[in-house]
Amino acid sequence: MTAPLAPGATIGILGGGQLGRMSALAAARLGYRCHVFAPEADSPGMQVAAAHTIAAYEDAAALARFAAAVDVVTFEFENVPAATLAALEPLAPCRPGVGVLQVCQDRLAEKAFLARAGVPVAPWRAVHDEAGLAAAVGEIGLPAVLKTTRMGYDGRGQAVLRTTADLAPAYARLSPRPLILEAFVPFVAEVSAIAARGADGSLAVYDTVENRHRDHILDLSFAPARVPAPTAALARRHAGEVAEALGLIGVLALELFVLADGTLLGNEIAPRPHNSGHWTMDACLASQFEQHVRAVAGLPLADPSRHHDAVMKNLVGPEGLALWPGLLATPGMAPHLYGKAAARPGRKLGHANRLLPLGSLAGMADAAALAGL
Amino acid sequence: MTAPLAPGATIGILGGGQLGRMSALAAARLGYRCHVFAPEADSPGMQVAAAHTIAAYEDAAALARFAAAVDVVTFEFENVPAATLAALEPLAPCRPGVGVLQVCQDRLAEKAFLARAGVPVAPWRAVHDEAGLAAAVGEIGLPAVLKTTRMGYDGRGQAVLRTTADLAPAYARLSPRPLILEAFVPFVAEVSAIAARGADGSLAVYDTVENRHRDHILDLSFAPARVPAPTAALARRHAGEVAEALGLIGVLALELFVLADGTLLGNEIAPRPHNSGHWTMDACLASQFEQHVRAVAGLPLADPSRHHDAVMKNLVGPEGLALWPGLLATPGMAPHLYGKAAARPGRKLGHANRLLPLGSLAGMADAAALAGL
Repeated sequence: MTAPLAPGATIGILGGGQLGRMSALAAARLGYRCHVFAPEADSPGMQVAAAHTIAAYEDAAALARFAAAVDVVTFEFENVPAATLAALEPLAPCRPGVGVLQVCQDRLAEKAFLARAGVPVAPWRAVHDEAGLAAAVGEIGLPAVLKTTRMGYDGRGQAVLRTTADLAPAYARLSPRPLILEAFVPFVAEVSAIAARGADGSLAVYDTVENRHRDHILDLSFAPARVPAPTAALARRHAGEVAEALGLIGVLALELFVLADGTLLGNEIAPRPHNSGHWTMDACLASQFEQHVRAVAGLPLADPSRHHDAVMKNLVGPEGLALWPGLLATPGMAPHLYGKAAARPGRKLGHANRLLPLGSLAGMADAAALAGL
Repeated sequence: MTAPLAPGATIGILGGGQLGRMSALAAARLGYRCHVFAPEADSPGMQVAAAHTIAAYEDAAALARFAAAVDVVTFEFENVPAATLAALEPLAPCRPGVGVLQVCQDRLAEKAFLARAGVPVAPWRAVHDEAGLAAAVGEIGLPAVLKTTRMGYDGRGQAVLRTTADLAPAYARLSPRPLILEAFVPFVAEVSAIAARGADGSLAVYDTVENRHRDHILDLSFAPARVPAPTAALARRHAGEVAEALGLIGVLALELFVLADGTLLGNEIAPRPHNSGHWTMDACLASQFEQHVRAVAGLPLADPSRHHDAVMKNLVGPEGLALWPGLLATPGMAPHLYGKAAARPGRKLGHANRLLPLGSLAGMADAAALAGL
């Protein structure tokens, strides 16, 4: 597939959550149909797609029918099994490809990749057994964070080790899955940058944003990040470099820690539209989802310029949903919901973007920046 | 229905064209499902809706099932039969209601209504037969425009009368349908204003825009209109007054002619999102489609402020589609396609919004305003 996807063509999306839903909405704006493949019936993405398949990611026959029904395949989430994408690659163009998925599904591969791509990372060690954990702690020191190498997100599958007494219970809880020990990073801020890379190798990188988490789940993003300009520029450069090194066709988020001296350490790559890029839906002419669709469809990328400062607030669980009526009534607020049926605690149900005039966020106290959120 | 529609509720949309599609996309952003009812299979709206019914507007059983499956009914186009909405009104809340539809489906009722709502209109007469046409021409003079009273849009169902020799052929072509003769208005500009009216009676009116037609089809909208400020303000006031007088819950466009002396004459009411409001999708925080969904769902209306100047270009037929690749590659351009299969001449396939800094359009020559379009 080298020619751009023609109007009316079908984009296949693996995964039916909010990222697939918002990608499908962006694809519709550009005249494409979407076909969502996911194991769950009535998923958010299926509610806005022209077609859907409800089947397990391991269902080879369903995957073959899906591949035959679409013009290109993408995924909304890097925890789709690599074997699924590997099964699809001979049948349909997959953007990004399985190689990208494999790097980003495994924290060991990801850390090694980041270092190769020139992004500094905190010290880390692979942990194969309990003795290996003790040895790794001896080398890296405490505090440190023990994580499963796979399927971790929103803080799941990890344990903070503060004293040697924490090692055994953490190992017992997380093993026998493959594990990684990472040095605890005394960061002063968490930032991320979203990079899109087109089929022609062109790059479009959004402004670096600052992220705040609550219970390990993203709570707020401030666009732009209130960090020194060289730090913000370096984060964007790193995101672009990672996209190039991956040979990505699509969108990725690079999450980084900012240390007190301004040093940036790479944390994670998410090779798809990312929660910390939701502000682009209202503060840019083209959102990260449109950018993703453009890349996957082989279209030219759009200008990623920001026309407003923005604060994005995640709506998580019943507590987040309780904010909805107030957000709808607040001028300057763009509220979004994902069509999920149950407001379970910890579930991301929507978000709201508060727009502010360009340049106003830098000098604004937190309380003012968050007014109405 | 007085309480706001809860997240996850279903909005029923009569009509499956681009206006229904863009309304469904806006509804999805707010967490609603849509159910599109239309006679045509695979219509643009159905491609992005959670459910659809393919049936004739006269199919009472299908309408009853539709009403039972949705929480509120709206329409995307005022040429949906009034009998359809009348059949639905006892079964589900209809916003707008059949009364609004009846006024706007009939040019005679519409002209009389506009005058009652305080909007000046050009002289007009009902035409019942050929002798009546001659009498009406005697009273109004020539040139004049003979139109069918119903089902006219994009210039269909009308004839310009310049000399008395034009009367007989025009009458022969347009009769036996009910007709109206309207004085030809020597306008210097055509403008429109989009007003939303909420279930609580609140109003949100977008900035007045200037419209240019080509072959009787909207070609360009300039936002804001380059007319004197009092003229633009009066057009907005009239749009709001018409929405109030109709008791509208939803969005309407009021089209007006501007005469050389600044006088405004009302032309048409479209009681739904309108082609001349597509610029709001990219130049405002909340589009006309979101505003329509908010009204229909009983939510508070959003701030209709404009954050950019904009020029909207319609993509009509094969000629419009040929512009698509260039528009995708133009910075500052937001391109939209509607998912229509065939690029027939005269068919609206999409549009593009060129954004410009606030205040720049007023002093800009046409060629510069249209650069890239």
